[in-house]
Order: sequence, then C-alpha cells, then structure tokens
Amino acid sequence: MTTIRDVAKKAGVSVATVSRFLNSTGYVSQEAAEAVSAAVAELKYELNPVARSLNTKKSNLIGLILPDITNPFFPELARAVEDIALTYGYTVILCNSDEKPEKEKNYIETLKKKYIAGFIVTSNQSDAPHYANANLPIVALDRIINEKIPTISSNNKEGASLGTKALLDRGCKNILFLRGPEDLNPANDRYEGFMETIQQVDANYHVVSCPFHFADSQKIVEQMLRDHPEIDGIFASSDVSAAGALKAAALLGIAVPEKLQIVGFDGVALGEMLTPGLTTVAQDVYKMGAIATRVLIKRIENQEIDHQFYEVPVKLVLRGTTRSGIE
Amino acid sequence: MTTIRDVAKKAGVSVATVSRFLNSTGYVSQEAAEAVSAAVAELKYELNPVARSLNTKKSNLIGLILPDITNPFFPELARAVEDIALTYGYTVILCNSDEKPEKEKNYIETLKKKYIAGFIVTSNQSDAPHYANANLPIVALDRIINEKIPTISSNNKEGASLGTKALLDRGCKNILFLRGPEDLNPANDRYEGFMETIQQVDANYHVVSCPFHFADSQKIVEQMLRDHPEIDGIFASSDVSAAGALKAAALLGIAVPEKLQIVGFDGVALGEMLTPGLTTVAQDVYKMGAIATRVLIKRIENQEIDHQFYEVPVKLVLRGTTRSGIE
Repeated sequence: MTTIRDVAKKAGVSVATVSRFLNSTGYVSQEAAEAVSAAVAELKYELNPVARSLNTKKSNLIGLILPDITNPFFPELARAVEDIALTYGYTVILCNSDEKPEKEKNYIETLKKKYIAGFIVTSNQSDAPHYANANLPIVALDRIINEKIPTISSNNKEGASLGTKALLDRGCKNILFLRGPEDLNPANDRYEGFMETIQQVDANYHVVSCPFHFADSQKIVEQMLRDHPEIDGIFASSDVSAAGALKAAALLGIAVPEKLQIVGFDGVALGEMLTPGLTTVAQDVYKMGAIATRVLIKRIENQEIDHQFYEVPVKLVLRGTTRSGIE
Repeated sequence: MTTIRDVAKKAGVSVATVSRFLNSTGYVSQEAAEAVSAAVAELKYELNPVARSLNTKKSNLIGLILPDITNPFFPELARAVEDIALTYGYTVILCNSDEKPEKEKNYIETLKKKYIAGFIVTSNQSDAPHYANANLPIVALDRIINEKIPTISSNNKEGASLGTKALLDRGCKNILFLRGPEDLNPANDRYEGFMETIQQVDANYHVVSCPFHFADSQKIVEQMLRDHPEIDGIFASSDVSAAGALKAAALLGIAVPEKLQIVGFDGVALGEMLTPGLTTVAQDVYKMGAIATRVLIKRIENQEIDHQFYEVPVKLVLRGTTRSGIE
C-alpha cells in the first residue's frame, strides 16, 4: 500500500509538507502543492482510508459553477479545482452559468437529484434561494453568496491598494479606475481598496463602472482618454478590462508605459501575451481552488471546517505596462 | 401553448427559418440561429412534443469533453454547444481532459453509469477503446475519433490554403509554418493545406512542430527568427501560437506587419486583444457547436443522421498583423 512517505519521496518534499497539504493545516508553496498533487495522483494514494470508510460517500462528483468560461480567469481557477479534487478521488464537472440565475438554478436542480456530492459556486446571485435551499454542501469561490456558505476569495482590497500604489509610486497623477460590476463583491472590495489609497495622496482620479469584457472596456477607455487626455495611469479591476485599456491606448497612439501606465487585476496568462506585457495584481488561483476544494470535501464528508471565510493573499506582478523605476 | 409562430415573431425571423434551424434541414445565419435560440429559451418552446413523447428520454444531460479549457478556442466552442443544447431542453456539463486519456476515461465511466444521454468529444485519442466501447451516443467535434463516430470539423485544409495565400499575396517570400502537434488530425490537415499551396509557388519555407501553447510557441519562434532573419511571414496553426509568434517578434524588435507578417488559425477573441490585431483563419465555432449538438440529439433520440462527416467552412479575418495592400 502506498504510504505518505512514498508520496513525499515522489514529490521531493517532506512528510510534514504532504501532511500540511493534505490536511489543510498550514502553508504549502504552490510548487510543493503541485508536486504533491501529482505524486498523489500518480501513486493513487488514498487519503485517510479509515476516516473515509466511516463516511458513506454517496457520489464522487463535484459541480463547479462558473459565471463565464470565456473570461480566462475562470478556466484557470477550474484547472486548480480539478487538480486538487482528483487527488481526493473526486471528479469535477463544469457548469457555465453565463451569470444567468435560471441557468444556475437549472444546474443545481438537474445535478442535485442523484448525481452530485456538492458544488463550488462562483455566482453574483447573493442570497439566491436556489443556494440557500439547495440542501447539499456548497462552497462559494471568489464571490460571497450568503453568510452560511463558506467563502474563499482573494484579498481584493489589499490587492487594489497594491495596484494603486504601483501607479502612484511610478509618478501617475491622474488615474482612471475601471471599477467592475457594482453587484459583485470582489469588484466592490477592489473599489474600496482603490478609494482608500488614492484619497490619502494628492492625485486626481476618475472612477467608471466597466464590465469584465474586453470590447466594452476598450470603448469606455477610448472615450475617457479622449475626454481626459491628462490621464496618465489606468487601474483595471480585471485583466480582460486592462487588455481593453491597452488596446484603446494603442488605437489612440498613446505610448505605454511612457505616457500612460496600466495595471490589471487577476494574473491570467493573457497578461503575458499582450505587448507590452501587463503589470497586474495576481490572484493565487491555485491556492483559491485548492482551499475551496478541500473545504467542500470536508463538508461532504461531514468534517468540521476551520473558518467560514478564507482570504488568499495576492501579489503584484510587474511587467511592461508600468515603468521600471519607482519615482 | 407556445407555437413555432410565437418563436418566429419573437426572434424576428420567418417560421421557415425557425423550422430549418430546429430541424437542421438547411442553412440558417449565425444571427438568426442566436435569435431563435434566445426566443426558444425565453418562451420555453418545446420542440416536436409528439415526436419527443415517443422516445423515452432517459436524461437531459450532455457531457462535453474538452482537451484544454485554458485554450480560448474551447470555451468559445462550449458556449455554442450550450446555447443550442438549451433550446432542445438539454443541459451541458463540461469535462476538461487535459489531453489525458485516463481523465477522459474517468469522465466517460463516471458519468455514463446513470447520468448522461450522450457525449460530444474533442479528443486526440483516436480509436481509444473507451469511446469505441462506450455504448452510448457520441459525436466527435474538431477531431476525428473513429469512422463510426460522426465528426464535425472545420475545413482545415482549405483554411490553411487561405492563410498561406494571405501571406503570399502580401509579398512574403520566406514563410515559417508553425505546425501543430503531429498526432492531431486538424493540425495535419492544416499542414497539408499549407504544403500544397506553398509548393505551387516560388517561395522559401520552414516547418516546425509547435504545441498549441503560448510560451512554447514564443520560444520556438524566437529561436527561428534568430537563426533565419530572412523570415518575413509566419503562419501559425492556432491563435495561441500566433500570439507567441507576435510576442517573439516584439521582443526581438521586429516590426509587424512591416518586416514580418503573421496569420493565426481559430478566430478566438484573443486575436482582437493583441496589438496589432491578429489576422487569422476563423473557424465558425457557433456553427460547429450547433451541428455537433443537433447531430448528438438526433442520435440520442434514435433519429437518422444525414452524414457521418460535416465540414464547416472557415473564413479569413484580416487585421493588423498583415499589410493591407495585396501585392
């Protein structure tokens, strides 16, 4: 039988690290988490077999409800959830809700009848009755649903503060903040972080609401840059919106980062593909997905969970849309 | 009760168009297909209630197995499948296989037991026994599985010819072709289309194999451009690879499209986000998804299907990575 020692050896980490990872009892680096996941999968290591046999595992299917799979943040989050779920012997199926409550409801009802052990949900339907009354384990990812459902999200406010400071430190005096949809709590936390930071300094700013979509963001930014040519920094609440801002600048012939600096939020692969590469506040997608999955499985297996709210740190990734020197 | 006339009125199209769309008996524009889908969903129109009641509909769940949801082509394809399936009262769940046969097999086995009416599959596992022996309706999308499973794919060879000619017509004399993975039939059809076209003219060319991944493509192209500074055109077998090529050019300070022209293949939203915008051979993702879904549902409901192989036309979309004038 495969032991935890075999997993540690295969993964090239200590037994303590494997244990921390598998039991969610402490910090594990992303590299280590990935190595342990791979080793567990390869060796088909079964976790806590005794504890497991005490629970009646009705199903090994987890549903992951995502609001928009064409926004690259969500496929990357889905990959993380899948990787971890697989190490626990669960299969993840993806449901794309298009932000439509009736589609979410349909997935919950269709899958709940007999198929699914629980759901991880990213929804803007706060307090929707189809979640409150779902009567099966649910974990909220990225966006709060209600206070009874455990939530895993990034430290969005702190992240927005980091992003705002990145622009201020590099000399921006007229900052445009692309606020996300006003019904989304992560977007509102980012807005708060921006406002608190900008109001502490002597800088002008504009705030416009902007959906997390490329073409809409491009149009909004193009108009703002025409109306306010003094804008010298843009902080977008998502990478897709930042990509729209960068495109708008290119169309207007505004040099980035010389005349205009841009910072995004998310840290998706798209940011590297752009030219110049996008400076962004990167969410730790792997960690978010890992915690959400582990919390859900604890709920499915009737184990205690440590917290109702898990906040995952973010970090600033500097690339070419901001100037290298700090002024 | 909602009638077909109500749907036509709501969608702003003729009854004949609605009928053609719902029964797959002729051409319907993408705009019309989307309007009809939306109207059917909104009015909760039920198709052929008599024909339906004759069939025992065991489940209304369709599984869509995708090879890599972080490649933006596949989420766009998934959206199309979902839109159409919903108009027929089917719910789509997504399965991300990471190109791993054991994950595909796990999805098929887990979902088949009691949950799923059929699968739409994009796989590079030609002739894998888990499909041949699946014993439930399967349709192959984008990539052939075996000759018994109906396949819907783009006219990849014709598309590659279009893309190659776009470069030749704009003066390219030294073309680099980024061939996709050699085990993928769409990639091989694109390779054939390139070879047939390039060999008819007096032009130099290089062919390198290149995965459909941004970072790998960037590295490969950077090396090729260093070794062969005479390259003046790149035709990539996917948009993600084309994005890598564009980034490599930017890093080497090679002006696009003045010194180097680039054409991609796919037509995903990423192409518009890049600067300059990517010229590409666009697949008709909506039509591919629509046909695949309708063929699968016919198989689920034991209806005859017209063909074993459906080839969907592609078109060239010109943007900023190619020069505007034809020489």
